Amino acid sequence: MSKYYLGIDLGGTGIKAGVLDEKFNILAKHSVPTQADRSPDEIIADMATTGREVLKMAGLSEGDISFIGIGIPGAVNDKSNKVILAPNLGWRNLDFIPIFKKYWDIPVYLGNDADVAALAEVYAGAAREYDNIVLLTLGTGVGGGIVFDKKIFTGRGLGCELGHIIIVVDGEQCACGAKGCLEAYTSVTGLYREALRIMEKYPDSLLHEMCGGDKTKVNGKIVFDAVKQGDPAAKIIVDDYVNCLGAGIATFCNALRPEAIILGGGVCEAGEPLFGPLDKIVDSLIFSTGDEPNPPILKAELGNDAGIIGAALLGIDT
Amino acid sequence: MSKYYLGIDLGGTGIKAGVLDEKFNILAKHSVPTQADRSPDEIIADMATTGREVLKMAGLSEGDISFIGIGIPGAVNDKSNKVILAPNLGWRNLDFIPIFKKYWDIPVYLGNDADVAALAEVYAGAAREYDNIVLLTLGTGVGGGIVFDKKIFTGRGLGCELGHIIIVVDGEQCACGAKGCLEAYTSVTGLYREALRIMEKYPDSLLHEMCGGDKTKVNGKIVFDAVKQGDPAAKIIVDDYVNCLGAGIATFCNALRPEAIILGGGVCEAGEPLFGPLDKIVDSLIFSTGDEPNPPILKAELGNDAGIIGAALLGIDT
Repeated sequence: MSKYYLGIDLGGTGIKAGVLDEKFNILAKHSVPTQADRSPDEIIADMATTGREVLKMAGLSEGDISFIGIGIPGAVNDKSNKVILAPNLGWRNLDFIPIFKKYWDIPVYLGNDADVAALAEVYAGAAREYDNIVLLTLGTGVGGGIVFDKKIFTGRGLGCELGHIIIVVDGEQCACGAKGCLEAYTSVTGLYREALRIMEKYPDSLLHEMCGGDKTKVNGKIVFDAVKQGDPAAKIIVDDYVNCLGAGIATFCNALRPEAIILGGGVCEAGEPLFGPLDKIVDSLIFSTGDEPNPPILKAELGNDAGIIGAALLGIDT
Repeated sequence: MSKYYLGIDLGGTGIKAGVLDEKFNILAKHSVPTQADRSPDEIIADMATTGREVLKMAGLSEGDISFIGIGIPGAVNDKSNKVILAPNLGWRNLDFIPIFKKYWDIPVYLGNDADVAALAEVYAGAAREYDNIVLLTLGTGVGGGIVFDKKIFTGRGLGCELGHIIIVVDGEQCACGAKGCLEAYTSVTGLYREALRIMEKYPDSLLHEMCGGDKTKVNGKIVFDAVKQGDPAAKIIVDDYVNCLGAGIATFCNALRPEAIILGGGVCEAGEPLFGPLDKIVDSLIFSTGDEPNPPILKAELGNDAGIIGAALLGIDT
């Protein structure tokens, strides 16, 4: 087995490729625009070219790697290795690997982008000490991945929609069409909606001042900064946010029993004002026999590199 | 590999053993009281005796089976094969297998009782057509099991506490200490609590009459019977119950993507008035790309035999 790994992270805007050494450090990375309106064939040809390019940048040759891993922004069937659906690329039931092999005949492994990010954190990030984790990414939406026994749990290749667990029966409308999803409360969008509501109720709060009088300018950073300065309205927003996120985390902890929860996305930059209260809430909701410590809640470490690193690791141990 | 299977279902009140043929039909079963206040050694000796007895009843000899599977009412570590905690037996960190082997030296596989019930439904019950299911048992509490790729998902051997996913942030107090758990709403206990509340609000409802004027006599059967007779108060109770159960089921469907959901426990006897509305609610909450049919919600078929059958199958394919 080679000791170098090549990962390609295909996104709606960019094709990123990276080469890792045996300790999963990035030796070189390179990216080109996806130009998502092109045909799959053209995009996939560019992926192969970008992969070869980054290998060269790392001073390696094709013989130095034994497989390529690729992260896809959509659902990948891990049995047929087809891309079931990648909405941002307009791909549906695409038999990816034969096309890739036209350009580079090497073993290829596919994974969903959120799943490979979770795998990356286990091998090379915040979850290095663990084999069993749930990763949640708190962005415009809420996604994530489940890794157990250092392997991705793919939900039959349909994609585990971790943002769409229900945390409030008949709750807030979610973008997915359902009501009460975790995403409806803990995405950046959900946080923004709640912030506006609370700011309307508390027109004299510090938050308004911090937004320069224009409440539509509020964002997660402002809310958490206002909490640090003791603003009671901001505290209500954060308390609600943490209660909801804590409920979602407890659901995963109680149902699946991971060793750790990893949180990614911009909201996590808040640090202690988020993680401190979150630990307390989750502790109060976790089903415990007292034999095991509760899973720690850790901030993801790999950021934008998680996609490359996790993709590169898809073929490991197979 | 032998074509007969021996399963032992250890409960707080009874030790049940059964022999299955290659089609997983029960050829013989037998049970003796657990007498849970005895030492582990005495109980385990009786388990071996009961197993031998049922083998004899089926007209078989020890050579006709190649392993024994045992369901334990508690958490079993599937790596160490120790019983971590079995509260009704007072067992904690019990190294079960060496004790059993004193009485019968044969390969032994241990599993949690709810997990083995799920496995049984996959091999021989309502989920015969599926490899990937979530089973929920709606009893005094709510438990269940996850089977993927025809294998039990044990949550690192700690036990997946499926009744303790959070469906209402800051909701009803649950027996586990947390608030808003699925169990707090969809257990028989939760249904009873809600029925009493609604009956207080609607003192003239048919429900009161059906309870002979004593509302503490209400139960699930009476509530569902009253719905069939068009009682609006009973309908409120069932609507709430179905909303909560549907949210829990949708959580498992969206996060794990099983092929089917299996429901066990007395509440399921309600039939169509439960399953009809439940299908509708779950359909409205499931995250779907339209490529796959939504998982059907099916009634468990094996009842009290699920423990024996699932235990007997623990060593299959290993």
